[in-house]
Amino acid sequence: MTIAAADIFSALKASCAADWDAYVHHRFVRDMAAGTLPEEAFRWYLAQDYLFLIHFSRAWALAAVKAERLDEMRHAVATVNALIGHEMQLHVEYCAGWGLDEDTMAALPEAAANIAYTRYVLDRGHSGDLLDLLVALAPCVIGYAEIGAWMARPEHAAGWQGNPYRPWMEMYSGAEYQQVAADVQALIARVAARRIGADPQGSGRWPSLAATFAAATRLEVGFWEMACHPEPLSPPPAAAT
Amino acid sequence: MTIAAADIFSALKASCAADWDAYVHHRFVRDMAAGTLPEEAFRWYLAQDYLFLIHFSRAWALAAVKAERLDEMRHAVATVNALIGHEMQLHVEYCAGWGLDEDTMAALPEAAANIAYTRYVLDRGHSGDLLDLLVALAPCVIGYAEIGAWMARPEHAAGWQGNPYRPWMEMYSGAEYQQVAADVQALIARVAARRIGADPQGSGRWPSLAATFAAATRLEVGFWEMACHPEPLSPPPAAAT
Amino acid sequence: MTIAAADIFSALKASCAADWDAYVHHRFVRDMAAGTLPEEAFRWYLAQDYLFLIHFSRAWALAAVKAERLDEMRHAVATVNALIGHEMQLHVEYCAGWGLDEDTMAALPEAAANIAYTRYVLDRGHSGDLLDLLVALAPCVIGYAEIGAWMARPEHAAGWQGNPYRPWMEMYSGAEYQQVAADVQALIARVAARRIGADPQGSGRWPSLAATFAAATRLEVGFWEMACHPEPLSPPPAAAT
Amino acid sequence: MTIAAADIFSALKASCAADWDAYVHHRFVRDMAAGTLPEEAFRWYLAQDYLFLIHFSRAWALAAVKAERLDEMRHAVATVNALIGHEMQLHVEYCAGWGLDEDTMAALPEAAANIAYTRYVLDRGHSGDLLDLLVALAPCVIGYAEIGAWMARPEHAAGWQGNPYRPWMEMYSGAEYQQVAADVQALIARVAARRIGADPQGSGRWPSLAATFAAATRLEVGFWEMACHPEPLSPPPAAAT
Repeated sequence: MTIAAADIFSALKASCAADWDAYVHHRFVRDMAAGTLPEEAFRWYLAQDYLFLIHFSRAWALAAVKAERLDEMRHAVATVNALIGHEMQLHVEYCAGWGLDEDTMAALPEAAANIAYTRYVLDRGHSGDLLDLLVALAPCVIGYAEIGAWMARPEHAAGWQGNPYRPWMEMYSGAEYQQVAADVQALIARVAARRIGADPQGSGRWPSLAATFAAATRLEVGFWEMACHPEPLSPPPAAAT
Repeated sequence: MTIAAADIFSALKASCAADWDAYVHHRFVRDMAAGTLPEEAFRWYLAQDYLFLIHFSRAWALAAVKAERLDEMRHAVATVNALIGHEMQLHVEYCAGWGLDEDTMAALPEAAANIAYTRYVLDRGHSGDLLDLLVALAPCVIGYAEIGAWMARPEHAAGWQGNPYRPWMEMYSGAEYQQVAADVQALIARVAARRIGADPQGSGRWPSLAATFAAATRLEVGFWEMACHPEPLSPPPAAAT
Repeated sequence: MTIAAADIFSALKASCAADWDAYVHHRFVRDMAAGTLPEEAFRWYLAQDYLFLIHFSRAWALAAVKAERLDEMRHAVATVNALIGHEMQLHVEYCAGWGLDEDTMAALPEAAANIAYTRYVLDRGHSGDLLDLLVALAPCVIGYAEIGAWMARPEHAAGWQGNPYRPWMEMYSGAEYQQVAADVQALIARVAARRIGADPQGSGRWPSLAATFAAATRLEVGFWEMACHPEPLSPPPAAAT
Repeated sequence: MTIAAADIFSALKASCAADWDAYVHHRFVRDMAAGTLPEEAFRWYLAQDYLFLIHFSRAWALAAVKAERLDEMRHAVATVNALIGHEMQLHVEYCAGWGLDEDTMAALPEAAANIAYTRYVLDRGHSGDLLDLLVALAPCVIGYAEIGAWMARPEHAAGWQGNPYRPWMEMYSGAEYQQVAADVQALIARVAARRIGADPQGSGRWPSLAATFAAATRLEVGFWEMACHPEPLSPPPAAAT
């Protein structure tokens, strides 16, 4: 008997319910769905997301390094290949439409909130095993699917009219991305089943896994916060007087 | 012929002069030297610094893993042993004087600025070689020595009178810590000499090393900023409405 | 001005000429070209090579983790994707023709010579930077291309007649594999140019890089030796009396 | 309720009983106890063991990087400090008595059996979590304690008379080393309790942990084999004709 993926993620989300809610229903998300998000916030997010994708791909490559079964390795490799060979290109094309060219984004300093999230995930991968790494990656993959699905609810239909962020909303609410996220959840559930058995919450690792999931979720919140109030990358001149 | 350690660090600091100045002369530092820093800011800093020390020690342990010569390895091991076996204990005792007990600090969530810095250093270590790691560690070690020396200047003597932060200032301006920092500088200079030769700035790796040093310096600034304006570890309830 | 890839590899091979010769002209190689290699040796080699490919793919995934430029990362990701998604399948089909099914190979204990090589490469990756890792990977990629080209020389034409190892010889002497190896050489030359400049042998890292290349070459020799005289995976019962 | 350390190790050893027996009762061990081991075998072992200690220390440093609790980290750091700062010096002094000076040993190429073992352990650490790493380290630590205790049995008393290997036998059978090994067993038991609970063999990770322990044990056997029949570090000239 294996655990349904949904059960593990329900438990992980429940273990940090307020943080999860702050992430998937963040003002940034709600304003995007309503079409009222300032363009500057969105452009900042897009540019930092370009840098995020690079380190997120590195984290999936690390999953391939750490995989102990060929099927786990294949899934990780297919994911990093899709990210680097396909998604990245889509992102660059999309950003071009917002006046952001690739060289500009590549030269941009990473915001601290961006560094905090991706390096935290990589460190969980280096200090823990494949399961620790995947649990740290999970809030991004499944949170965006949840955000997409939430945006697609009938009660938010009005917001889609003439919404400048509609292509983004279509992508994450679309069947293709929803399937990607479901596949990742299934992968994590299989990896978890082999490492912590059929009763994840009863396992000695549960507190640590839940802490990883919660920390990564808070770092996602920090990423949205950064976009709403972009932090200065260096302090204002006055600070150094 | 080998390069004097001072030359490399002068070049690294010059390559990010504004960031370096913002770090070593940050308002937090100036207010501490003047004795006017709010106690709450200092207590927040102390508690986060406890968590910082744990991951900073992990980074030095990683230096021991990555060392390719026994003398490099011995220096890294001696450092991590001093940090974990000695400094940590001093820090805990000092914090107790400020009403912070170890269990409380160990249970505290790490602030994003804290995560960003330590995990950035660890990631530079995992993605690069020993030199990349040490250059990422350098702003902390040599910056604190510079801050200590700056505080000890005659023109700041007035601030030491009845200053509640005096033990901290004595430690970092003291001969023992100044020697530790000088030894680390010498280690990095030796490691650099073997990897990038006698003309560091002419080496193909210089732009990448300077970028690492600058990024770590900005993350130090972020750490002081956090202490001055502690970021919320989870967003205020209103944000999630 | 950048160095031609050939120059670096000529220098690396020259620095361990006897080991390189022992590897690319090993008895296993010569007997394969002559069609006189015992089938048992070849089957042993094929089965261990299946396990080798898994860890070799992990090493290329680690290259993606360690890459600092997007083009380097793309090359590493494309390689690991080709290895896991394509080569592995070809290998499994080819092995089936030799009576080796995938489950049997997956369950086989790795020979010590196999473990020594792949884990050495992974460790060079973890302790060093991308260049250290690629130099450790190089003897495999470029040695097999050299072996293929050597087998395709006119003076060895007689050996191809009715040679049971002909498909193997065709693959490694073929244009497709020769191009893969040339691309990897070009990648390593670019990575080297950015890290050790236009005069690799004059760089402080040269002794360490040459030592890595030589060690990996000797471990390739050990792999052929293992196939010629398969080591016992557990000692004979008498040893434990 | 926590598991007694002895229970886990009994189960791990039982899962690879023949390999374990081949390791702790290897001809090298029996001949040392009898004083009949050829000096050349012992000198070879000592020289390779010097190189082994360096990489074994790196593996313990990696344990400090991967530790998730301060007490686990302290134990790992104390171990690597003892190894590098103390044991290594004892080893060098002891080797000097056998005519092996440190520079000679440091310049010696590592034998393949040596590379295989240490790099396997490091790779288990990088691919798995702290428990995977410690289980890979365990056969060395507890096996040597078992060998020392076996040599100290009354029935082997005759062999101690005029035995040239007596200092080695005294060290590993002595109270100090036996305590070190007992402490490491207790550490592993605590780490295991937090990760796989009170019924290790019932955990989903058991097959993987047992496979790691067995593989490391076989690599220890390979190390003794190497000493009995030192493998050529490069093939004989004739092989390349």
